[in-house]
Amino acid sequence: MNAEIIAVGSELLLGQIANTNAQFISKQLAELGVNVFYHTAVGDNHNRLEQVIKIAESRSDLLIFTGGLGPTKDDLTKETIAKHMGLELVFDKEALESIKEYFIKTNRKMTENNKKQALVLDGCKVLSNNHGMAPGMFLTKNNCHYMLLPGPPSEMQPMFATYGISALQEKLTNKEVILSRVLRFFGIGESLLETKIEDLIDAQANPTIAPLAGDGEVTLRITSKTDSMETAEELIQETEQKILERVGEYFYGYDDTTLVQELVRKLKEKELTVAAAESLTGGMFQQELTSVAGAGSIFKGGVVCYTNEVKRDILSVKESTIKEMGVVSEQCAKELAENVQKLLNSDIGISFTGVAGPDELEGHPAGTVYLGIAVKGKATAVEKLMLAGTREGNRKRTVRYGQYFILKALEA
Amino acid sequence: MNAEIIAVGSELLLGQIANTNAQFISKQLAELGVNVFYHTAVGDNHNRLEQVIKIAESRSDLLIFTGGLGPTKDDLTKETIAKHMGLELVFDKEALESIKEYFIKTNRKMTENNKKQALVLDGCKVLSNNHGMAPGMFLTKNNCHYMLLPGPPSEMQPMFATYGISALQEKLTNKEVILSRVLRFFGIGESLLETKIEDLIDAQANPTIAPLAGDGEVTLRITSKTDSMETAEELIQETEQKILERVGEYFYGYDDTTLVQELVRKLKEKELTVAAAESLTGGMFQQELTSVAGAGSIFKGGVVCYTNEVKRDILSVKESTIKEMGVVSEQCAKELAENVQKLLNSDIGISFTGVAGPDELEGHPAGTVYLGIAVKGKATAVEKLMLAGTREGNRKRTVRYGQYFILKALEA
Repeated sequence: MNAEIIAVGSELLLGQIANTNAQFISKQLAELGVNVFYHTAVGDNHNRLEQVIKIAESRSDLLIFTGGLGPTKDDLTKETIAKHMGLELVFDKEALESIKEYFIKTNRKMTENNKKQALVLDGCKVLSNNHGMAPGMFLTKNNCHYMLLPGPPSEMQPMFATYGISALQEKLTNKEVILSRVLRFFGIGESLLETKIEDLIDAQANPTIAPLAGDGEVTLRITSKTDSMETAEELIQETEQKILERVGEYFYGYDDTTLVQELVRKLKEKELTVAAAESLTGGMFQQELTSVAGAGSIFKGGVVCYTNEVKRDILSVKESTIKEMGVVSEQCAKELAENVQKLLNSDIGISFTGVAGPDELEGHPAGTVYLGIAVKGKATAVEKLMLAGTREGNRKRTVRYGQYFILKALEA
Repeated sequence: MNAEIIAVGSELLLGQIANTNAQFISKQLAELGVNVFYHTAVGDNHNRLEQVIKIAESRSDLLIFTGGLGPTKDDLTKETIAKHMGLELVFDKEALESIKEYFIKTNRKMTENNKKQALVLDGCKVLSNNHGMAPGMFLTKNNCHYMLLPGPPSEMQPMFATYGISALQEKLTNKEVILSRVLRFFGIGESLLETKIEDLIDAQANPTIAPLAGDGEVTLRITSKTDSMETAEELIQETEQKILERVGEYFYGYDDTTLVQELVRKLKEKELTVAAAESLTGGMFQQELTSVAGAGSIFKGGVVCYTNEVKRDILSVKESTIKEMGVVSEQCAKELAENVQKLLNSDIGISFTGVAGPDELEGHPAGTVYLGIAVKGKATAVEKLMLAGTREGNRKRTVRYGQYFILKALEA
């Protein structure tokens, strides 16, 4: 099965939003072993959408549409598909009931235009929308599969995961096994990593090795196609081992994991708690940590010490440190990390102080950052970074390094 | 000029990254008055890319490619275009020099595969890459324009803004003026807003009115096409006035602004400072505030009080409040807001306490949130929210409401 994902909505072509739906669906399809060869985005325009459908039918046999199922007048995906396929639109009783219920639940008044959302393609399988109003649809005609999903990711994602995938699985006849594993690295650039494993990439056939850089990280995706899950596993394992022999020191995790997830996992495993003192990062380290459900057992809290006053009065940084060495200094990072650890009575204290930019501070250029890591019973470590990104890029990078340094400290 | 944006890279089709480049370029082109009718993404595959180019040439006269210009073996955008157009690839001296300099500047060793990045389409205009290595290209042939840009957004965005747009402007002959203005609303749903202005939308011709919902907000884009900037301004002004007469109470800003930017602007204007006590939001409010450059003059800092212990010991929430009413309570929100305002000596104190989810807390369901807003010299206000999203959605929504409530308090 070869898929094409078609996003409908002028807001995409005007650049008001990014097509994150295509990313989400692609990821899920890759895991099902369905090839995605094209993404297309087209506006709320009947003729152009119909042309796009014709092209897609000529090169793909699964067409997944997102968007254009809503109540407003420019929503025309199902209308265009119905006309193109010669099908009627009919009211779906359950969908209509569920739309009415949705308004009762959220205590809002139902407007007339919302009824249009209960119209579905005659003969389709209706995919329920548990997080919004417009139902999805699935239909097979002339050996081509059509799936229609709503545009808002908060509705589309659970619908696809709950009903879309199982509808597709019923149609899958391919017995070939495609298995992928992603290795994640931090602290090494893409071309240096590729150079270190160039001979492995040159010799690749099955499994294949695909590098990707982004967000300060590099990943390698190892993909193997065989006739059994066991052989696929073995092939991937072999390749992974060869790669890690060369660049294992930068490796931190598999697949969809993130540095912060690995950090929370490791802290839980070791039953350690952390507290943070954040200056330039303004709370980002703590916000990321608490984005992981269950962070409560490993995270106590912390202080965002954006002004010198807060560093001194709440986190007890010495007046002399601020006056003589400045807040962008090794000594300030050290005191912040040690003092926040004591103040919150945690096992680990981490501090972030430096210059996010765009302006310089205390004579230090933007991107100058000190991180302090105070582990109870150990000598406090301070790491210095010289970053060259934007303000927001420097802040994100700093937080990633913080996560990475704690992880490495826990391994040591 | 009708544009199509073509992203090249299997990482898009595997869902490893979202196509944010298409969004960025579309936004810029809309401002230039260039219509974008299609986005396409295709993998690192010579034949499929060539087919995509043929389709694009048949329906668009500006093709903008992103990605596939890098050093690795699967980068083949310029190679495929060269073959398709019958052009040679030649070394660009300046690009080669700049690649060598880049390695010296970042203190890394240049590997041989990086030289490939200095190859450009014979006869093209070279677009310099000031943030990476692969140069961009611009070429016109048979009345069709081709622009090639690198994939990483940190390289593509400055290249397009600095060199891409001016290259396009030289080719633009269209003297029609297209002007857009976006009105941003918070605290009202899309269908209710649309119902309130339905007659205006029905009667629309020039300007047009396009609603869009997302991220807890609704926006209306008013677009006018005329022969002079003055008339366009007038037409938009008239429509905006009619809309704001109906739904002005939910309006908070124009175009690309965000609630947090408006908040920082308003705080600076009134010369007021804020401090925050964050439980469920874990630092997100403070992190967003400090993402705005120059937040230092209006933000002191705050405390992330993730545990009851921190709420009591650092933010002086009464033991009796925690025991008798719990931390998910109006009283706790009140004390947190007032105490953080006093502790940090700011003009405004804001607090966030509640249940992000997925699990309930103290018998309250996920999504139960209390926000305290303590303004020096005024009675503290506490707002209760009942949210129905995911953990991360509830946290984001809570922070938006916090920004909105302070803004409204400043207007009062």
